[in-house]
Amino acid sequence: MFTIAIHGGACSVTRSELTEEKEKQYREGLEEALTAGYNVLARGGSALDAVEQAVKSMEDNPLFNAGRGANLTSEEKVEMDAAIMCGKTLKAGAVANVRNIRNPIALARAILEKTENVLLDKDGAMAFARDHGIPFEPDEYFVTEHRFQMLQEAKEEEESNNVGKGTVGAVALDQEGNLAVATSTGGIANKKYGRVGDSPIIGGGTYANNRACAISCTGDGEYIMRAVAAHDVFCLMDYKGLSLREACEIVMKEKVKELGGGAGLIAIDRSGQVELVFNCESMLRAWRNERGEGEIAIL
Amino acid sequence: MFTIAIHGGACSVTRSELTEEKEKQYREGLEEALTAGYNVLARGGSALDAVEQAVKSMEDNPLFNAGRGANLTSEEKVEMDAAIMCGKTLKAGAVANVRNIRNPIALARAILEKTENVLLDKDGAMAFARDHGIPFEPDEYFVTEHRFQMLQEAKEEEESNNVGKGTVGAVALDQEGNLAVATSTGGIANKKYGRVGDSPIIGGGTYANNRACAISCTGDGEYIMRAVAAHDVFCLMDYKGLSLREACEIVMKEKVKELGGGAGLIAIDRSGQVELVFNCESMLRAWRNERGEGEIAIL
Repeated sequence: MFTIAIHGGACSVTRSELTEEKEKQYREGLEEALTAGYNVLARGGSALDAVEQAVKSMEDNPLFNAGRGANLTSEEKVEMDAAIMCGKTLKAGAVANVRNIRNPIALARAILEKTENVLLDKDGAMAFARDHGIPFEPDEYFVTEHRFQMLQEAKEEEESNNVGKGTVGAVALDQEGNLAVATSTGGIANKKYGRVGDSPIIGGGTYANNRACAISCTGDGEYIMRAVAAHDVFCLMDYKGLSLREACEIVMKEKVKELGGGAGLIAIDRSGQVELVFNCESMLRAWRNERGEGEIAIL
Repeated sequence: MFTIAIHGGACSVTRSELTEEKEKQYREGLEEALTAGYNVLARGGSALDAVEQAVKSMEDNPLFNAGRGANLTSEEKVEMDAAIMCGKTLKAGAVANVRNIRNPIALARAILEKTENVLLDKDGAMAFARDHGIPFEPDEYFVTEHRFQMLQEAKEEEESNNVGKGTVGAVALDQEGNLAVATSTGGIANKKYGRVGDSPIIGGGTYANNRACAISCTGDGEYIMRAVAAHDVFCLMDYKGLSLREACEIVMKEKVKELGGGAGLIAIDRSGQVELVFNCESMLRAWRNERGEGEIAIL
């Protein structure tokens, strides 16, 4: 038994903007990332490797707001956050505001594996990356025309929170019964002042614990952080005995929504049950289990 | 009815090192910080103001590992983390790895009050501070002989996790029935690669929610983050119906301890009940309520 679920961001696509061509691209990108993670699980690999590979695929795809094609800060730079967590050991690795790292999720994984630390930021995290042979890319690799346009829009509207959201993430259950999660993002367009979102916050946007479930969030990061949303799903299951579905619905459609946040999450429990819940118009999402059951969906 | 509790770090003082002179200094420093926060509450001020003032006092006191007198990084710099959260609104502000900010907790408060963001880091957070008139101090203001010695010890032992821990924090219940929390730290001695600890992580080292309690953690930050300790105390109360004491004991003496972390926390519930729990030899701590009941203790 094994299952993987991924997301490519919630609340970032509107029905009216979604052309046939755009939909095809998103579906292809999701299919590619899902397959990358699924293949790891199918050949008996770990949930941790599966979520890393799925997220890496979306970081490499300029379509998604993570790695190549990530949003631009007010200074026209790409600054990225990411986190990965193992549900068996509760070990975690995360990075905030790193530049020029080809795959922030691979850097987060190296922090999980090779340090006693959980979260490293900025130039310090980049120095760690250099010391451990993590691949870098020049600025041009990351910046796409699409994100440059979004930055201009965000600057014109001066509402950085409403333009160019998005995150990528993956959760998985492997054949050993272990859960894992990975989340990666370029943050919001036109972000200022070294803003860090929920993705690298263990418990906020990212959490896994074999006792119950693994969760990756996406959307208005500040509301997700204030709701400690990923850990809240876990606690509602572990302490209150709710089902995965009930826990996800309460956190997204009541708690985060009542704070004012548009957001979504993907979650998986120990039985391989998957939930993909969002409180806005869209979440790029996909899942597949060992029987080949699954779906790819956007709206 | 009102109550405040503070800590000046757990697991940082050993019985054998604690001279009479040192004990007197710690008790005076705790008394001063407690009184700063208590006076705010006594005159009808908010829990948010009280915890900010208490933490500010400890940041200004070179004895504690926060603000002036904070630990030094491997590069002999002071880089500080802090967070503040309001239990009524669930609004929060936090900073990671800021340099030269006299009171990181005042910067976190400004982020809570003046932005839509929760967490800002490094030079971005410092640019925000400059734009909002937050006081800066030169390097010499922060660096004490004591911390310089600790850095040398840490470098010799190459065990940055075992030397020079410590954090400061405060939780309060005000006369309006609102809860708040503030936490501030210089992190661990000889820290490298932009390490961020649990203090600025909402849910990790810092969490407040009027539904149940406010919590500030201290100690081995990585274990606190992986346990999502502050939010876990809240969830054990809110979802499982445990008392404040039961929740704090489980999180510190079972969960964080089983992961391998030496740590402590202070917590307060809606009735003004206070818990000061640690799983190691010491926690610098104090509390006082509206009847003048309270204590100051170290071991």
